[in-house]
Amino acid sequence: MATQRIRDFLATHCFDGPCLVVDLDVVRENYLNFEKALPQSRIFYAIKANPAPEILSLLASLGSSFDAASVAEIEMALKAGATCDRISFGNTIKKERDIAHAYALGISLYAVDCVEEVEKIARAAPGARVFCRVLTDGKGAEWPLSRKFGCVPAMAVDVLRRAHQLGLQAYGVSFHVGSQQTDLSAWDRALSDAATVFRHLEQEGISLKLVNMGGGFPTRYLKDVPTEQAYGTAVFDSLKKYFGNRIPETIIEPGRGMVGNAGVIRTEVVLISKKADNDNVRWVYLDVGKFNGLAETMDEAIRYPIETPHGDKAMEPCILAGPTCDSADVLYEKTPYMLPLSLTIGDELLIHGTGAYTATYASVAFNGFEPLRSYVI
Amino acid sequence: MATQRIRDFLATHCFDGPCLVVDLDVVRENYLNFEKALPQSRIFYAIKANPAPEILSLLASLGSSFDAASVAEIEMALKAGATCDRISFGNTIKKERDIAHAYALGISLYAVDCVEEVEKIARAAPGARVFCRVLTDGKGAEWPLSRKFGCVPAMAVDVLRRAHQLGLQAYGVSFHVGSQQTDLSAWDRALSDAATVFRHLEQEGISLKLVNMGGGFPTRYLKDVPTEQAYGTAVFDSLKKYFGNRIPETIIEPGRGMVGNAGVIRTEVVLISKKADNDNVRWVYLDVGKFNGLAETMDEAIRYPIETPHGDKAMEPCILAGPTCDSADVLYEKTPYMLPLSLTIGDELLIHGTGAYTATYASVAFNGFEPLRSYVI
Repeated sequence: MATQRIRDFLATHCFDGPCLVVDLDVVRENYLNFEKALPQSRIFYAIKANPAPEILSLLASLGSSFDAASVAEIEMALKAGATCDRISFGNTIKKERDIAHAYALGISLYAVDCVEEVEKIARAAPGARVFCRVLTDGKGAEWPLSRKFGCVPAMAVDVLRRAHQLGLQAYGVSFHVGSQQTDLSAWDRALSDAATVFRHLEQEGISLKLVNMGGGFPTRYLKDVPTEQAYGTAVFDSLKKYFGNRIPETIIEPGRGMVGNAGVIRTEVVLISKKADNDNVRWVYLDVGKFNGLAETMDEAIRYPIETPHGDKAMEPCILAGPTCDSADVLYEKTPYMLPLSLTIGDELLIHGTGAYTATYASVAFNGFEPLRSYVI
Repeated sequence: MATQRIRDFLATHCFDGPCLVVDLDVVRENYLNFEKALPQSRIFYAIKANPAPEILSLLASLGSSFDAASVAEIEMALKAGATCDRISFGNTIKKERDIAHAYALGISLYAVDCVEEVEKIARAAPGARVFCRVLTDGKGAEWPLSRKFGCVPAMAVDVLRRAHQLGLQAYGVSFHVGSQQTDLSAWDRALSDAATVFRHLEQEGISLKLVNMGGGFPTRYLKDVPTEQAYGTAVFDSLKKYFGNRIPETIIEPGRGMVGNAGVIRTEVVLISKKADNDNVRWVYLDVGKFNGLAETMDEAIRYPIETPHGDKAMEPCILAGPTCDSADVLYEKTPYMLPLSLTIGDELLIHGTGAYTATYASVAFNGFEPLRSYVI
């Protein structure tokens, strides 16, 4: 829920239009919780979740490393004070000239999931370390995980062998269990696959060193989620189970788990109406929607907690929609959202848990609406 | 398909990264075709489809009117040379202070779909003209049409009566048959509803004057679509059928139909790979995706024609995806896209029919990738 610092900031500042406020104290607390829960793992913050310079600087000062999706994100991390040994180029889809650019900036750790990408890296970043991403089933994750990234474990063996042959350092295996993952056993299945790849290559004399356990650590929306500590314990148990006394280096890449609960969007009710006299749900239109911050309501995947000025007495189901002239700009319709009967046009609402994957998803100017303004305090 | 002017422009300019090129000659031709097909209708270009200043200026000079979704779009149209009598505030969801702002700029034509919005307009824009949007079923449209906008015809009567009581000019009825609508009978059903609202209010002494027939006019993607002329004939036949000798003023709001086929996106193949040795589809990753221009591939709704340097011999099914580290950034997967076997990393592709709903949907900086660059020639 919104911290007192966020409430004070909103109470003392005046804005026309929706805005996101992120509390750095919460980010710091999340970082320290991850560090405590997984003391043997290095933390690579997934910059894409929220690349605000203040967040990157704070995390850099706390000792965090960074998972970058593009050259621009690498440059943001460097600017925030991270050294290049603390940055990975974690996107498996890279132009060869972008790899060369990253290599020139000193980046030496790269994600791959196919032989074609290994060949690019061998040409553009000779001698670099690569880790190969393996597919997981994404079971238990709330944000859909497609087969877009990763390959089957058997192919990962081929990919890393090829890297070794081309003079790269076949460094490890990565996986991602799916964003907002609340099923602890998802990490267990993925670690079992990772260990299989380690064993196969060991037999060929190639010693992998790293397991990148990705992100997926959830933030609390409407339902409770396991604590960082519970994740840490589950992951460490699986590591012992599959790697015995030879536990490899591990890294984690929290994004949502690092900043999701640190942010709150303030929005205004623009209109409340019905489509026919006998409708039993009201439509509630906000000044924030799918195209200026709430893209993750796509398919109603992420359900944010919403705070109104009316408390929680006398609720009724509402369809929530954004402000644009686009039919697709509807947030919750299949499963209507319970909101107070006394909700009124002009009311200000707080949408909690919106620190991750909001501001940067906003469109440049769809319908003439400006992108979501963001304040980091 | 790409015009020679666009091909020449791309051949003589060098870009790093994807870009959209829009040919104003095509926009002009589309405008003149609409004018010819529907000589009795005024054309209100839906600015949201593509608000590039060059497009707005051209259309303003040709005599077009403009459908604006926000105060910012009203200001763009004014800046392009449109007078305020040629601009409607067509969004049914407006803040009262934005209505006041528009009214101060001279805007006198407003969309509504409920009594609550009428009351705002009566306070903030006294005496203005309002038209009420009625729901349609969206049958036959390729881009999903929700119930977000409009009310049932019976309620539209109440809404317009209320406008009249509050001193506004109850001016007419609007509808939208759904974007990329290829079923000509959709307009017939909606016009029948509009005529019902006219008749009811006529009996109460309130004479409506306008039918706003909205947009929905399709652009040619992979399949052929009816010509503007075919639409014009069908619409005029329905108008005669339902309004007899008292055909009202009509306006149309083409957006996609005005600029869709005028634009081409140039993109680069970043990676081609498989997930397992025995996979029978390849994954093709482009440097443009859902978050930097191709948002309308959501649920694979819009299927763009794609031109490769290899012609159309020896094709195979591919899954197409964008460049970001987001699992949801997949363009066509449920129905794979046929692409040449000889397609290679680094190939440049042209994505046709991308003049509408691309550049402005692009996110500000997701994954550090810049928004889609746009050139209007």
